[in-house]
Amino acid sequence: MVVRVDLNISLDGFATTTDQTPEDPFGQDWSRLVGPYTATRTFRERVLHESGGGTTGVDDKYAAAYFEGIGAEVMGAGMFGLHNFPDDPAWKGWWGDETPFRYPVFVLTHTDREPIDMSDGTRFEFLAASPQEALARAVDAAAGGGDVRIGGGPTVVKSFLAAGLVDRMHVGITPIVLGRGISLWDGLRGLEDGYDVSAETAESGVVHLTFQR
Amino acid sequence: MVVRVDLNISLDGFATTTDQTPEDPFGQDWSRLVGPYTATRTFRERVLHESGGGTTGVDDKYAAAYFEGIGAEVMGAGMFGLHNFPDDPAWKGWWGDETPFRYPVFVLTHTDREPIDMSDGTRFEFLAASPQEALARAVDAAAGGGDVRIGGGPTVVKSFLAAGLVDRMHVGITPIVLGRGISLWDGLRGLEDGYDVSAETAESGVVHLTFQR
Repeated sequence: MVVRVDLNISLDGFATTTDQTPEDPFGQDWSRLVGPYTATRTFRERVLHESGGGTTGVDDKYAAAYFEGIGAEVMGAGMFGLHNFPDDPAWKGWWGDETPFRYPVFVLTHTDREPIDMSDGTRFEFLAASPQEALARAVDAAAGGGDVRIGGGPTVVKSFLAAGLVDRMHVGITPIVLGRGISLWDGLRGLEDGYDVSAETAESGVVHLTFQR
Repeated sequence: MVVRVDLNISLDGFATTTDQTPEDPFGQDWSRLVGPYTATRTFRERVLHESGGGTTGVDDKYAAAYFEGIGAEVMGAGMFGLHNFPDDPAWKGWWGDETPFRYPVFVLTHTDREPIDMSDGTRFEFLAASPQEALARAVDAAAGGGDVRIGGGPTVVKSFLAAGLVDRMHVGITPIVLGRGISLWDGLRGLEDGYDVSAETAESGVVHLTFQR
């Protein structure tokens, strides 16, 4: 069992964007940050349920690996959308009825919410827990002994990195300078210790870094 | 004539380090930051005047390009060493009698200092000037119509980038997280506009980014 992270960041390390509006809950910067990822065939098939399109190069190789072998996931309340829709008890995340997960997903929140069982096999469960506790729950729940993914957002990922709980992290660095947001790196001096770090460049200009224990 | 920049930064964008001491004016972090560069054959030959050693891969390709075709250079007072040796009128920079430059170097400082003519053909000239003024001086002085390099440190480079004066920037990203120092990216949101950005990875793990107009 391996604990894995995949994140997209800008050259200046920002894993979130700050230009969201109620009408555009992701923001224009977000589209640019994740543009090469959302252009992949894997994203189009697995997340958008489209077929027959999308890039098939290096970016797609990482996009496909993103979902491969995962048995459970931990994500933050913001990634699930609770910050945007705090008062909607029927909110089921950004992904529609057919999610890309199809495994147990633990959403970290201090708000009590009933678990949601989706028809595709995804179960969203809500809990207030430390990284260690959340990870233990996810390991127990991981289907078929699969890996656990720390999905995001960056604040959640950083708490797992700071606790030394991440075995492999893939970071796609999009060659844009955002200038603001939450930095992946901030507060993590010496993160590279204990990891082998390798890099591969994609046709899109994205640099794929892998931290591997 | 092209205005060029070469810099080494950490994953979190820091182009300076902060652990210097009087006994170790560069600091341990600096050694790690520029380690892959100082290990190249080009650095060993051109800067250390050693022969027969050093790496000859992708890092060395960029190290060699660093010096190629340059006719003049602009650097900050800190890079020349004036912050470390402000009261030594005989200070001639970090590079000894045989510098790696062999062309005119303009050092930005508000302190009056006489020009220094080195026996290798390098002339250090000291001036208080805006980026535009310093660049005009360097263009005039550039031997054989060569390119002008903005040598560093990062504060000087950032002032030239912010003024839109840089045609090509090569950034070597060393896969370490420093957590402190002067960030290359800070304040430069949208820097990628007007540049093609490409990336190449080296055997050492360094990612070489090129911003090209």
